[in-house]
Amino acid sequence: MQLKPRDKKSLLKAALGEIPSDLLIKNVKLVNVITGEIYPANVYIYEGFIAHVEVENLAADLEAAKEVIDGKGQYLIPGFIDSHVHIESSMMTPRNFAKAVIPKGTTTIITDPHEIANVWGVEGVEYMYDSSEDLPMRQLIDIPSCVPAVPGLENAGATFSAKEVDQLAPKERIIGLAEVMDYVGVINGEERMMEMIETAEKHGLYLQGHAPFLKGRELSAYLCGGPNTCHESRDSEEALAKLRNGMHVDARNSSIARNVKEIWEGVKDVTFFDNFGFCTDDREADDILNIGHINDVVRYGIERGMDPVAAIKSATFNSAREAGIEKLGAIAPGYVADLILLDDLRKLVPNQVFFAGKLVAKDDQLTVEIKAESYPLETKNSVHIKELSVEDFKLKAPAGKDKVVVNMMKYPNPEQSYTEWVKEELPVIDGCVSLNGDKDLKFVAVVNRYEGNDNLAIGVVRGFGTNCGALASTISHDSHNLTIVYEDPAEALIAAQELLHCHGGMSAVKEGKVLHTLELPLAGLMSLLGAEELSLESAKMKEANRALGLEHLANPLLRIVTLALPVIPTVKMSDMGLINVPKKEFIPIIEA
Amino acid sequence: MQLKPRDKKSLLKAALGEIPSDLLIKNVKLVNVITGEIYPANVYIYEGFIAHVEVENLAADLEAAKEVIDGKGQYLIPGFIDSHVHIESSMMTPRNFAKAVIPKGTTTIITDPHEIANVWGVEGVEYMYDSSEDLPMRQLIDIPSCVPAVPGLENAGATFSAKEVDQLAPKERIIGLAEVMDYVGVINGEERMMEMIETAEKHGLYLQGHAPFLKGRELSAYLCGGPNTCHESRDSEEALAKLRNGMHVDARNSSIARNVKEIWEGVKDVTFFDNFGFCTDDREADDILNIGHINDVVRYGIERGMDPVAAIKSATFNSAREAGIEKLGAIAPGYVADLILLDDLRKLVPNQVFFAGKLVAKDDQLTVEIKAESYPLETKNSVHIKELSVEDFKLKAPAGKDKVVVNMMKYPNPEQSYTEWVKEELPVIDGCVSLNGDKDLKFVAVVNRYEGNDNLAIGVVRGFGTNCGALASTISHDSHNLTIVYEDPAEALIAAQELLHCHGGMSAVKEGKVLHTLELPLAGLMSLLGAEELSLESAKMKEANRALGLEHLANPLLRIVTLALPVIPTVKMSDMGLINVPKKEFIPIIEA
Repeated sequence: MQLKPRDKKSLLKAALGEIPSDLLIKNVKLVNVITGEIYPANVYIYEGFIAHVEVENLAADLEAAKEVIDGKGQYLIPGFIDSHVHIESSMMTPRNFAKAVIPKGTTTIITDPHEIANVWGVEGVEYMYDSSEDLPMRQLIDIPSCVPAVPGLENAGATFSAKEVDQLAPKERIIGLAEVMDYVGVINGEERMMEMIETAEKHGLYLQGHAPFLKGRELSAYLCGGPNTCHESRDSEEALAKLRNGMHVDARNSSIARNVKEIWEGVKDVTFFDNFGFCTDDREADDILNIGHINDVVRYGIERGMDPVAAIKSATFNSAREAGIEKLGAIAPGYVADLILLDDLRKLVPNQVFFAGKLVAKDDQLTVEIKAESYPLETKNSVHIKELSVEDFKLKAPAGKDKVVVNMMKYPNPEQSYTEWVKEELPVIDGCVSLNGDKDLKFVAVVNRYEGNDNLAIGVVRGFGTNCGALASTISHDSHNLTIVYEDPAEALIAAQELLHCHGGMSAVKEGKVLHTLELPLAGLMSLLGAEELSLESAKMKEANRALGLEHLANPLLRIVTLALPVIPTVKMSDMGLINVPKKEFIPIIEA
Repeated sequence: MQLKPRDKKSLLKAALGEIPSDLLIKNVKLVNVITGEIYPANVYIYEGFIAHVEVENLAADLEAAKEVIDGKGQYLIPGFIDSHVHIESSMMTPRNFAKAVIPKGTTTIITDPHEIANVWGVEGVEYMYDSSEDLPMRQLIDIPSCVPAVPGLENAGATFSAKEVDQLAPKERIIGLAEVMDYVGVINGEERMMEMIETAEKHGLYLQGHAPFLKGRELSAYLCGGPNTCHESRDSEEALAKLRNGMHVDARNSSIARNVKEIWEGVKDVTFFDNFGFCTDDREADDILNIGHINDVVRYGIERGMDPVAAIKSATFNSAREAGIEKLGAIAPGYVADLILLDDLRKLVPNQVFFAGKLVAKDDQLTVEIKAESYPLETKNSVHIKELSVEDFKLKAPAGKDKVVVNMMKYPNPEQSYTEWVKEELPVIDGCVSLNGDKDLKFVAVVNRYEGNDNLAIGVVRGFGTNCGALASTISHDSHNLTIVYEDPAEALIAAQELLHCHGGMSAVKEGKVLHTLELPLAGLMSLLGAEELSLESAKMKEANRALGLEHLANPLLRIVTLALPVIPTVKMSDMGLINVPKKEFIPIIEA
């Protein structure tokens, strides 16, 4: 992608000093991420681009700009680039997300609207695109590559193929094919992935990868297939192997997965970090507010031992290069003037943030207005479910049996989303499977919520973590069908009706009453609230989840959201039933 | 540019080990230019691409390839990339050039066919393209940006504008807009350069720069204009400023200009060298044979103190990235298998060279045949000059004068192409200006050699260096008109007729006899001889030039070739007359 000045001839004049620049930021310690040096400079900016960096006559020429900001000896670094993020994970709209991250110094993100695409398809991606126009930050978009995650085993609201890539690619801020998760499809050369990759290449998009645990010849094949970035490295050896094999390694600290420590241990002894970057992937609103955004990830890398300038380079210059964005991520003539003034290269707390040459945040506060705009999709109901009754949530047994063997998923660890496949015998009462008073067992219902599909699958889970009530969510990766964990079908119905009523979200029911509902009317994934209000709402929802028994989890909201994700071993539920993940096969819930 | 496998699905299978690779290079010390590490590895290659790099099971799996080469513990490095070269300067055809440079480890060049474009226009570029198809090296081509160098002050055989860029850009191996020399046009936003740059950007071409001596605000403006590479840095300060300002600095050691030493002194203390590369620009056949090609430039950088791995990275991975070539310049899965085996990382003498996975040179000898092909342009006469007589070479004085004041160029230094503008009074004999027996004075004729133009300008030069005879050349940058330096018009005629007869080249005449003629029938610039024969011919021509008085020059052939180059200060000749270079104005040769 090329970032081009509106009027190059005038920019040239400003560079030459023939016309005044718009802004001069003087008296800074410039952090040059291209050479790794730090030196005093004055930076001239014209219509959003750096026109000139003066290093000699630091006192002269100060009249050559319409506005002068005194950096007072602070460091000037490029604005941060988050190389991989899902805005939906913040549960905020793109505009509210912008309000939250800009004060943290994030001036560019590369976002994968994978979640909303599973709900609203191309229309969802277009919403993310349209609603992020004219923001005082740069939201660049990759086209989701795996909608749904596993075709044939689940039903989402849309299906993406090469056609959707072809349709979306021409848009200016669409720059890549997003994390190609179907690594099996890539390394086996399956038609669907090959066509999507080829179409993306035809449009000059870069190919973002996603290759957790891949190594050896499988990693080689994935790289030969095209995608050459990865933010899914989890251990040191994996990260080093990926870097050595030419992959761009984006070290991630999300709200869920904190991998920077292990990654850094793996790569710290190499000499060159050209292909190293940072990303947040998924960060919740309160983490962004209280801990930070990509600046927090970089800070953590520095705390682990990375040189501050190399770390800043990784989250600016390197990330721009990884994604093929020219003239972004450095402080040099012709580059976009996304800049941060700060006084501590290790803490990375921005004092002033500039986007395209305009001051957009100061002392952790936005200084520009981001107008509230409304878009049809924000209030369009995405939860389409037939009228439900208590009966719908009962797990029926075959006629004439008083006990059955149930295939179920078992969570061996209360904090991890990995499951095992177990078989247990359960009694049948009034024709329905009973949990037999075992508090560690719960029913699971996955209800398709898209028009034209009334799928509803019921199974049983052991070790989920709740010990009473019903917990329901329309955030349920990646198809985002309505997923409910419960003991009593009547409570499941209450939770389901609650979410039908508010067009999606999360709800906790206990003793027949709604404890709290987090309303997420936008695609059943996102709130229309800003970060601060949403954090409060989210805290209440966490409290309600804890009241159902999830008290030990750092973030109890995340427990349910991967229950129906059929890419995590060993067994998962979808709206179509119980799935053997490695084999991509269905398992009968009740054994014949 | 994307380098793509012919059959990706089969490559994936080879990567996975499901089908045998074509070649395994085992038992090597792999130089990883991405991480900077060196470690033992086996490298599997399939249809020209690296399928897998094995670092663990170095003894296993050896059957998984059709052919196995034992690296015997040698270093394996990526094939070298010359980031900027004019093949014409070698005076060889692209095919003969390939024969000469491949054994030196050059597997990719980025060439600017600027010289032949000035003679033959688009047809010339197409010849360079067509005749370099299917070579066992990669000749990538940038579109000449300044044909002629200074429009309006000289007449070449063609004129390039945005139209020619548009026409040539779609070809697969055309990747950039070549060295944008008209920096004045760029920084002033002149229409011709803006249009060419915009057209190149539209086609996704990279913009190669050329900005000697530019600094401060002019350098900033040039960078804002688009081109962001430069191989013309001459001093340390200049190189550092360019690197800091985001320019790719390509350190050059050509046969003429050796700048690596000064450049390295300027940049050696920076931390990151992501934007640093090497190039040869112009190297003669005998230099290539006896000293080396881009490997020699890298070796020199290492001798000056650059870390060998960083230096190799600069001439491989960095150069590919500078020119926007994906999957080239490193040893990793999915990358093109251009490789060198060698045993000394400081001497950089290749023992074996592989191009796209095939052994193409061993112990300084080609191991593959490069078939002699003939192309119509190679024998098409480019020297079109009306019938000449001795009278044509006399400098006529205005009627009735017995002396005149002549504006002339003076070379203050016998080795440099810089000139001064002087005025001298000379006698008139028989209506013509006389050199008055002053051996330091010579006539200069620049004769247009293109169809439809009979321009012939005669001037006087002081300090050129010859002390007798006539020296003629159809290599005469950048318009390559026939240029002759002489005392006696009769000898000028002999030299001119000699070059007309052989369709261009260089010729030396003394005492009425031809001492030697170097025949360059291809565009008047290139021989059809291979490197070794050409070196002998070239040595004879140098000897002849020395016999005319140029005995102290390292390379006397280069004396005449910049006499008509109207971008070098202060005064130069063209087919249109004497030029004030800085002012872009004509100067009357004889004062009124």
